[in-house]
Amino acid sequence: MESSQFVLASRPIGLPSSANFRMEKVVLNDLKDNELLLKSWYISVDPYMRGRMNSAKSYAASFEVDQPIKGGIVAKVIESKSKSILAGDVVVGTFPWATYSVNKTENLRKIDIEKVPPGYFLGILGMPGFTAYVGMMEICKPQKGETVVVSGAAGAVGIVAGQIAKLQGARVVGIAGSDEKCKILKEQFGYDEAINYKTSKSIRKEIAGLCPEGVDVYFDNVGGEITEAVVANLDFHARIALCGQISQYNNTKPSVGYSILPHLLTRSVMLQGFIVSNYSNRFGEALSQLTKWLNEGKLKYTETIIDGFDKLPEAFLGLFTGRNQGKMLIKTE
Amino acid sequence: MESSQFVLASRPIGLPSSANFRMEKVVLNDLKDNELLLKSWYISVDPYMRGRMNSAKSYAASFEVDQPIKGGIVAKVIESKSKSILAGDVVVGTFPWATYSVNKTENLRKIDIEKVPPGYFLGILGMPGFTAYVGMMEICKPQKGETVVVSGAAGAVGIVAGQIAKLQGARVVGIAGSDEKCKILKEQFGYDEAINYKTSKSIRKEIAGLCPEGVDVYFDNVGGEITEAVVANLDFHARIALCGQISQYNNTKPSVGYSILPHLLTRSVMLQGFIVSNYSNRFGEALSQLTKWLNEGKLKYTETIIDGFDKLPEAFLGLFTGRNQGKMLIKTE
Repeated sequence: MESSQFVLASRPIGLPSSANFRMEKVVLNDLKDNELLLKSWYISVDPYMRGRMNSAKSYAASFEVDQPIKGGIVAKVIESKSKSILAGDVVVGTFPWATYSVNKTENLRKIDIEKVPPGYFLGILGMPGFTAYVGMMEICKPQKGETVVVSGAAGAVGIVAGQIAKLQGARVVGIAGSDEKCKILKEQFGYDEAINYKTSKSIRKEIAGLCPEGVDVYFDNVGGEITEAVVANLDFHARIALCGQISQYNNTKPSVGYSILPHLLTRSVMLQGFIVSNYSNRFGEALSQLTKWLNEGKLKYTETIIDGFDKLPEAFLGLFTGRNQGKMLIKTE
Repeated sequence: MESSQFVLASRPIGLPSSANFRMEKVVLNDLKDNELLLKSWYISVDPYMRGRMNSAKSYAASFEVDQPIKGGIVAKVIESKSKSILAGDVVVGTFPWATYSVNKTENLRKIDIEKVPPGYFLGILGMPGFTAYVGMMEICKPQKGETVVVSGAAGAVGIVAGQIAKLQGARVVGIAGSDEKCKILKEQFGYDEAINYKTSKSIRKEIAGLCPEGVDVYFDNVGGEITEAVVANLDFHARIALCGQISQYNNTKPSVGYSILPHLLTRSVMLQGFIVSNYSNRFGEALSQLTKWLNEGKLKYTETIIDGFDKLPEAFLGLFTGRNQGKMLIKTE
């Protein structure tokens, strides 16, 4: 059986390009006991994968040059030597960026796609949704009447984080990169206010105007100048969930900015850097609560789906130009 | 009754100077019921007071121009109309920088100076000691075998923070501003290693060498480049107690430095900005534990005492040049 896969052709310096990826053919082995043949259906591209393209030590192991990129994938089971998962089932797991792959039962999880689109298991009911859930519920803990700011608000995580804060009774201000994103945040996702950072004359002043009593919670997906602007507006005892720093992922040297520590000190701010796997003991709770809210219509979600396995690098690169609204996915057929 | 007092003559811009203070005479009223006449004995100068000299909103109320500076003072009771505190008693409280002052019973606390020097109630058994205690025990929570770094290690707070970490079984590295300070940290206060940041060619590399498995806990009193150097060496799940930023207090504009957030993110670091009054419910516990450790000889302390009430501005300014080892105090007689 032949499959196509993307390998890491070279480690990017700065912003990645399609030259850092190479598509190649690979022949799959026949199935052994407990193995399944999977056909990739929806493939996730996520900002954290940029870090895995570097060789530097980080929280997730580096991708190896000439080896397949791996990420979250929803796949159809084509053939099965598993006892619990059968041909025709739909599964989710971390698999190679390949049209077909072979994997073991214990590395994947069967999903029920009757009520929700399959891609949701890579978004609101997957890693990004769990990230928003634990970041907001475990770290930020917004209280009724508090003011919450979410950066990267229209992204796969941010769009959920803001809605969860609303469900806790908070007032939520989103920061995003286009007027259209700001519009959907307010009209479709219940954000109270939204700031287009690309056209704002002063993000700091705009936040000050929209948050006259200060910011109690900041869910940060982006870092950089946006974060400096939010930090300047923090109220006493504010909490920051440091979830992502997408504005910094392609830096070729450490970035320089205004020191935020004096603000964090004088406002008694708590900041927690985190990755979702730190909270894996809460994934069951997160999945069940997010599914419940989704079924009750209390949470909404959106996806940017690009057709074609060969578009994977392009979709990934689009994350850094803000091409996506909500979850960015490749659909293979 | 006439007293001398220091008032804030003007708000400093940048590094304060003696011109920002003015000594003047004041006539005290006769005592009313419940009031006491106090003679200042030991007067505390503390870095946080720099913030109070600004008009900007912060955690402590601003000093007012032409009004007396107030701070921690150990005083002798000269005359008393209180039922519980008598002439001859020694008390501690927040009083004006004055040779004599009148205050009410509920604003002061009687102290027992038989076993410890009076100034300790402004240091290890006062605000700086409580700060070290809650910062280390409540925020940093060092575990046996972990590596702890303390900046401003030879200061009033740092000297205690490091010893508390040692009592928890951690390995402790101090950062201080002279070879002599480094020497006493290791020889008198049990620090395992000490770095003189003023002569170090690369603080970051020196920390890396002394902390080969990374830094688990950082107790930050100083901010700026020292903090950037420590942050670059943090291990996964490190904790930072953001206690002070003395390197930044005299900035006339926001300081610029390397962004630390990418490090805090990829290492899942928790940072908590704090002031000791956030933990006032634990002062009783702190006082009792610190007193116990002190009496058992498990904690040591040191003071830099300058004689003469008129030297108050000079002592305060000395904090910013690192003139003190341990607690900086004025003794009035």
